[in-house]
Amino acid sequence: MEIQEWGEEELIRYISKEFPVSLPVIGIGDDCAVICKDDKDSWIVTTDALVEGVHFIRSQISPEDLGYKTVAVNVSDIAAMGGAPQYAFLTLALPRDIEESWLKEFIHGIKEGCLKWGLQLLGGDTVGSKRDVFINFTIIGVSEKDRVKYRSEAKANDVICVNGYLGDSAGGLKALQEELEKTEEVRYLINAHFRPTPSPEEAGWLASQKGVHAMMDLSDGLDCDLRRIIKASHIGAVINVERLPISEALSHVSFENHWEIDQLAIAGGEDYRLLITISNEVFDAIQALFREKFGHILYPIGYISDQETDLVYHKAGKPVGMNLKKFDHFQ
Amino acid sequence: MEIQEWGEEELIRYISKEFPVSLPVIGIGDDCAVICKDDKDSWIVTTDALVEGVHFIRSQISPEDLGYKTVAVNVSDIAAMGGAPQYAFLTLALPRDIEESWLKEFIHGIKEGCLKWGLQLLGGDTVGSKRDVFINFTIIGVSEKDRVKYRSEAKANDVICVNGYLGDSAGGLKALQEELEKTEEVRYLINAHFRPTPSPEEAGWLASQKGVHAMMDLSDGLDCDLRRIIKASHIGAVINVERLPISEALSHVSFENHWEIDQLAIAGGEDYRLLITISNEVFDAIQALFREKFGHILYPIGYISDQETDLVYHKAGKPVGMNLKKFDHFQ
Repeated sequence: MEIQEWGEEELIRYISKEFPVSLPVIGIGDDCAVICKDDKDSWIVTTDALVEGVHFIRSQISPEDLGYKTVAVNVSDIAAMGGAPQYAFLTLALPRDIEESWLKEFIHGIKEGCLKWGLQLLGGDTVGSKRDVFINFTIIGVSEKDRVKYRSEAKANDVICVNGYLGDSAGGLKALQEELEKTEEVRYLINAHFRPTPSPEEAGWLASQKGVHAMMDLSDGLDCDLRRIIKASHIGAVINVERLPISEALSHVSFENHWEIDQLAIAGGEDYRLLITISNEVFDAIQALFREKFGHILYPIGYISDQETDLVYHKAGKPVGMNLKKFDHFQ
Repeated sequence: MEIQEWGEEELIRYISKEFPVSLPVIGIGDDCAVICKDDKDSWIVTTDALVEGVHFIRSQISPEDLGYKTVAVNVSDIAAMGGAPQYAFLTLALPRDIEESWLKEFIHGIKEGCLKWGLQLLGGDTVGSKRDVFINFTIIGVSEKDRVKYRSEAKANDVICVNGYLGDSAGGLKALQEELEKTEEVRYLINAHFRPTPSPEEAGWLASQKGVHAMMDLSDGLDCDLRRIIKASHIGAVINVERLPISEALSHVSFENHWEIDQLAIAGGEDYRLLITISNEVFDAIQALFREKFGHILYPIGYISDQETDLVYHKAGKPVGMNLKKFDHFQ
């Protein structure tokens, strides 16, 4: 049997079964591993790879954007658990014909990301590669112990919300694939694809609020990622499709090009927004404080149900089938 | 200009210049980064990649050996600074046609290494790859603060020594390349290439000895790695070529196949032994204790001189030119 028949979920399940871990360490499954630092704090560790031909096309993305994105997608994982990024390690495998200018711009993008999110690059590995560029980035972050947020803490009746528009990144990728003319709106979407904007500040503040239960980052698409919360928390969820926050740019470009906007928002992936579940008793108060502090709102998009493992989409208050195309690196 | 004209040293120099770090963190340059854990201990972090077609040929190495080697080369870096391995993170980029059995055996090899060296695998990333297998492994280890060993601590008149045979791994690679008949001795060499044997116990004990000054692991060959100590410590070195410890198997196989044994021992790479400099006043005492504790000896192979940046090879007490072929992934 070839590995493409497994899919990523199955692969992670297999590896985590082979490597059981015991408390106080939380292991494979969440966005990061959590390691006891001292009485007060935990270390939070994440690692994410970007592979040429799978995660990016070298001729489509500038080396600077690629470097920046490498940092951003890992910062997003640290933020998802309420941590503050601290130290970074970069592994870079380069084919021998890479231009010096490419390398310098790539490192510049890494540096821009590190400066933006307060990261110190402490080491890594630089090696050759036969054909493709391979990048691995590891971040160690820190969080107060009782503020670390997990996927397994969602409770029935929680409000499900996100902290920004969905589908812009997937729209940007589609615009690149369809070689759309680069209008201002198309450029906005492409920029969302190349330069995700995780916010450890927003995440850290949310993590400090008692009513915030589960939190993770949206990397593989709302459907895929929400199913992870559902599974880890042994609950279900209802999503109101009309309430998914969509940017004006994505609305316009989707309309003009006959894209299925719900597909992009629900299954597109690479949003790098926060997916949060908040006690419905305090949701309004938290939303008001959040808006005051960060100048934009938390978008409620549905609620947690007690129907275990059930994810239902509603339109006009009624369940609808979505027929989603799943995104999986192996398929 | 293409990156192959830079070489790995130049690339590391460029990146570390772009990312200066300040104490108490020690950054790019040593085998690991050192991060303050608490008053007593430091975290020691390393990351190493193995790329198909550069570090291994998929048809030549069993997936189990590849998994084991992935762990071993990283444990070697942790040991080189006197640390005890604790937590691990695995990134695996796989082409979609990889067989399920390959993956299972690879994970089995990772597991074998983790069990052997007391590592807990806590996370990582599993992604697709277009063509080649990419592996990245990160280890977090721990060491008492005053026991961490650096490359920069070698002193004039120190005895330079290693804790095992040199050149076996390079001999094993050569035997594979030349498709030698698999006699017992050839199998021993190939095994040394596929299954390095770092020893955090020996390294930890050495790190606890006051007379031990500099320590690192031999990954790119004695010549290349000793030059790193020389540069970091602002000293020079004299190596007595006749004193390099060579296994009987490598002696025999080299003789039969007209291999230049000195080349393999000095520039072959992937020995994953410790390269240590020890105060000459206490060397005999440390060597005696080491032998008693670990059942084999430390091999003295030369001494540190005060001739800055000068590395001289001696044969029969006289300087000789070595005309080494350098090993560099980019060249």
